[in-house]
Amino acid sequence: MTERSVAQNAELALLLEVAGTPKPGNVDRVREYDDLRFEHFLAGAVGARPGLERAAAGDAIGSAFEHAVEGMSGQSAGNTQFGALLVLSPLVAAAGEDDLSRDGVDAVVRDTTVADAASFYRAFEHVDVAVDDPPDGLEPLDVRRGSDAIPVLESRELTLFDVMESSAEVDGVAAEWASGFDRVFSAAERLRDDSGPVADRASRVFIELLAAEPDTFVVTRQDRATAEEVQRRAQAVLDGDEDVTDLAEELVDRDVNPGTTADLVAGALFVALEQGLVV
Amino acid sequence: MTERSVAQNAELALLLEVAGTPKPGNVDRVREYDDLRFEHFLAGAVGARPGLERAAAGDAIGSAFEHAVEGMSGQSAGNTQFGALLVLSPLVAAAGEDDLSRDGVDAVVRDTTVADAASFYRAFEHVDVAVDDPPDGLEPLDVRRGSDAIPVLESRELTLFDVMESSAEVDGVAAEWASGFDRVFSAAERLRDDSGPVADRASRVFIELLAAEPDTFVVTRQDRATAEEVQRRAQAVLDGDEDVTDLAEELVDRDVNPGTTADLVAGALFVALEQGLVV
Repeated sequence: MTERSVAQNAELALLLEVAGTPKPGNVDRVREYDDLRFEHFLAGAVGARPGLERAAAGDAIGSAFEHAVEGMSGQSAGNTQFGALLVLSPLVAAAGEDDLSRDGVDAVVRDTTVADAASFYRAFEHVDVAVDDPPDGLEPLDVRRGSDAIPVLESRELTLFDVMESSAEVDGVAAEWASGFDRVFSAAERLRDDSGPVADRASRVFIELLAAEPDTFVVTRQDRATAEEVQRRAQAVLDGDEDVTDLAEELVDRDVNPGTTADLVAGALFVALEQGLVV
Repeated sequence: MTERSVAQNAELALLLEVAGTPKPGNVDRVREYDDLRFEHFLAGAVGARPGLERAAAGDAIGSAFEHAVEGMSGQSAGNTQFGALLVLSPLVAAAGEDDLSRDGVDAVVRDTTVADAASFYRAFEHVDVAVDDPPDGLEPLDVRRGSDAIPVLESRELTLFDVMESSAEVDGVAAEWASGFDRVFSAAERLRDDSGPVADRASRVFIELLAAEPDTFVVTRQDRATAEEVQRRAQAVLDGDEDVTDLAEELVDRDVNPGTTADLVAGALFVALEQGLVV
């Protein structure tokens, strides 16, 4: 028996995340969309690994992330794990430096450069990612401009950390970047303290995270009211007032997909695996 | 979008195999055993990849296989994909040489050496694999002896191909080694000719293979009568006389696990992916 490498644990975290069921609204082992299936997430995770290996080896975060996204996109459904890779990349880099802690990953993200920001923008050229219109005055930095926005990044000397910090209020993944990945590390603790199959733990921690804050991917694709409804109903599941399977069926039917929360679960699974969680 | 490497396709084949449902008697996306779960197969596939990369790079088959088994065993359930890796290793080697054909893989297995056979025996030291007692007179070559059997292999100058050929009548994977992987290549063709989600195709081709021949893993763990019963009932599913989900539930309850057939499906998925099957 050999120990898994850092990149192997990151890939396994992506696989365990999608294997957790039920995960209301998201693709899981028993629920999928016609054009976004379980198998696309398997192929996305396999494809992402070379980029994750670069992050573990100490390559620049932006370029490792872009490479992971490019590999992830080698399946026919488009975006499967863009957000999860954005969570994982700095965590993997910190683990590669043997410092997978809130402070360690905070140092990694604060060390990012303008070149990292440029790679991040280029990553949007590999897949369609659902994003909101930028706030007034920030149109030149709309991520959908891809590499066309790079001259603006350069003239304003914006690092990837700066870019993330400016989106922290509207994007749950960016909020982690700006806050030392606090929710991810807390969720990793709960995964380790829980018992039973790891995929079941992932499902439970997903519901807890969903009940704690509105999912920003739902805000983007639907609206804030829907995200707040999903949050309330996840809390109702925790309180025993709503059936989790019924909620899962309903959200898939409505195409309400709390993807940001899933991204955080992937990050938490990675941290827990690195900390010794046994599969 | 980047193309997956040979080793990535092999890993993805392992993941797609276990994702196919229903696969009567085997772990799949919705059925698992308490001590052998879906997540163990995910971790097994991730762990196996470095060994698969060695096979693709042209390392000796036996040593690449042993390394893949060692990595696969890095999860808590023991043996998940030993047989599948024994099917995949020569196929991956042939693909690494740009000659993934019946003739190509036949040349690979016929080129194996006594050292490959020694590595194969050592692989049994990494996990418990269910095997039958050897035939009379072959006790010194019982695989359960692990590396203790190596001097016998050496004195008799037995290559890995010789070892496989001698088991071809009682082991479905060995039979593929001895016959140019005929069932695997035929199944790959059916996977490509089929339509719909790849995991569903994997489930269908599993039933077809199961109906065609008794599963030798069932013969080993139960007996020939059970294997023949399973074969008949898989045919009944194809004929529309038996419900596949009911059969899946029943076989899991009885712990009847047609693992050899699953191993062939993993090989067929790999061949189909290499031939351009889109996920």
